[in-house]
Amino acid sequence: MRLGTVEAAGRARVVAVLDDAHVLDLAAASDEACFADMVSLVEAGEAGLEAARAALAAAPDHAVLNLSDVTHRCPIKPVQYRDCLVFEEHLKNSFAAAEKMTGRPFAIPPVWYDQPVYYKGNRMSFIGHGEDVRWPNYAEFLDIELELAIVIGKGGTDISEADAPGHIFGYTVLNDVSARDAQMVEMAGQLGPAKGKDFDTGNILGPWIVTADEVPHPAALEMEAVINGERWGGGNSRNMHHSFAKIIAHISRSETLYPGEVIGSGTVGTGCGLEIGKRLAPGDTFSLTIEKIGTLTNRIVK
Amino acid sequence: MRLGTVEAAGRARVVAVLDDAHVLDLAAASDEACFADMVSLVEAGEAGLEAARAALAAAPDHAVLNLSDVTHRCPIKPVQYRDCLVFEEHLKNSFAAAEKMTGRPFAIPPVWYDQPVYYKGNRMSFIGHGEDVRWPNYAEFLDIELELAIVIGKGGTDISEADAPGHIFGYTVLNDVSARDAQMVEMAGQLGPAKGKDFDTGNILGPWIVTADEVPHPAALEMEAVINGERWGGGNSRNMHHSFAKIIAHISRSETLYPGEVIGSGTVGTGCGLEIGKRLAPGDTFSLTIEKIGTLTNRIVK
Repeated sequence: MRLGTVEAAGRARVVAVLDDAHVLDLAAASDEACFADMVSLVEAGEAGLEAARAALAAAPDHAVLNLSDVTHRCPIKPVQYRDCLVFEEHLKNSFAAAEKMTGRPFAIPPVWYDQPVYYKGNRMSFIGHGEDVRWPNYAEFLDIELELAIVIGKGGTDISEADAPGHIFGYTVLNDVSARDAQMVEMAGQLGPAKGKDFDTGNILGPWIVTADEVPHPAALEMEAVINGERWGGGNSRNMHHSFAKIIAHISRSETLYPGEVIGSGTVGTGCGLEIGKRLAPGDTFSLTIEKIGTLTNRIVK
Repeated sequence: MRLGTVEAAGRARVVAVLDDAHVLDLAAASDEACFADMVSLVEAGEAGLEAARAALAAAPDHAVLNLSDVTHRCPIKPVQYRDCLVFEEHLKNSFAAAEKMTGRPFAIPPVWYDQPVYYKGNRMSFIGHGEDVRWPNYAEFLDIELELAIVIGKGGTDISEADAPGHIFGYTVLNDVSARDAQMVEMAGQLGPAKGKDFDTGNILGPWIVTADEVPHPAALEMEAVINGERWGGGNSRNMHHSFAKIIAHISRSETLYPGEVIGSGTVGTGCGLEIGKRLAPGDTFSLTIEKIGTLTNRIVK
């Protein structure tokens, strides 16, 4: 099942995909309270998913929307947002580029191989498929980042690696739009990325969340980034050095994960411009595709 | 006015301090909807504060609670949580200690003087005055951090340094409990602190939020950390290298700040054990005092 959030007739609606041209407005199809927003549906757990499946099976006409009549929104407002860095190829390519830009030496630290390092990003700055990214006023070097993200379903603490896949609600495409110049400067401050990642419209999820039952763990999904019709790069999520199970186990040590939290994989190798000597220009359109989920397309405007 | 959140008769209540022994249950004293929780009160802006002042002036008997009958809770559930690092003395002392612990050299990077570097922490792991901190199961070296925090009142984007003080709802004490061993290891990964800062019960705010009208900007407040009755250190918030106005201006560049977000100053010089060669032991009690706000006392248990 693929789920999303769209706006139709001025109101946000949680929907499930019927076919290439139609979605089902779940709250219109059923009187379940869990269809009020995506976090409520995630919190409802297996019962929520069963109610969604039942609604899809019935698919009453009055609840069917033409995709051409709706506007995509971010599928979920993250309860919290973390982003990892688990593709070795991305790190190698990016560090080579960063050395050229800054003159400072970069090497992959041993801790990277031992644990899935991550930072927490701005949960309030997310947009969805088709919405414009606004160029931040303090940056010159803008870039995309093609990532696979999970939405946490069942919460928990000290989740074992073996149990972790059962805590994944679903998978979605993440574009972690980045201001490289700001990022390079501030990361010397040793607290991780801040203004280099976090600005309004700078985080994008969508177009759909594919439920975890449709993606065998560990996820092995093809990923591709196309900018203005030109393929920049891509890869496969099977190349994650740390799986999402290991990531969940690491984060949840003595720390509760809640339904509706979002965790990104980090950029797939060649999944950003920095790695291949390219950068965004105002007006550029980027389409990030991940197998089974769909294509997340946005434009950047200045 | 000093505001807080307490639990009485099994229910959380937003309160205002009447005197050393009594608080006023604002929702019991008034039928304003904004007293449902602290974020609602913050979102209500000046009208909410005026309603609280009016309730305090009336102080009907049935809404007065004895402080001895209530349990403190975190005064606000942060909409988002960022933490800065603006006390130079803390950084100098901590870097000297980190060099000893790791054998790696540490020097204050030039960017630290140019901009208020910060990271985002776990907004879901906060507790309040009097609640126990639970020792995380992966760490040996636990520490306190004495910080001044602000709560954002009026939201905004591209807020000027001159306008920024008008966006501060109030001030509170922050204890950013830290697992130094985990922090030292993971920060070599260059994404900032993660498990070193974020574990359940690892962030503490309180006991009160003092409203911004009672603290002339920039805040010059005495700060002191006392562990098991012994003074570890302290200082004054006038020594912040970057003021909260500058911090708000920096963060809000092309990025919206929302009512109810919380921003910490970073540790005041000598405001943690790392700087002075001390660490916590199970059962320790720590009392962090900031002038005009009060004393935030908690115990750590293993």
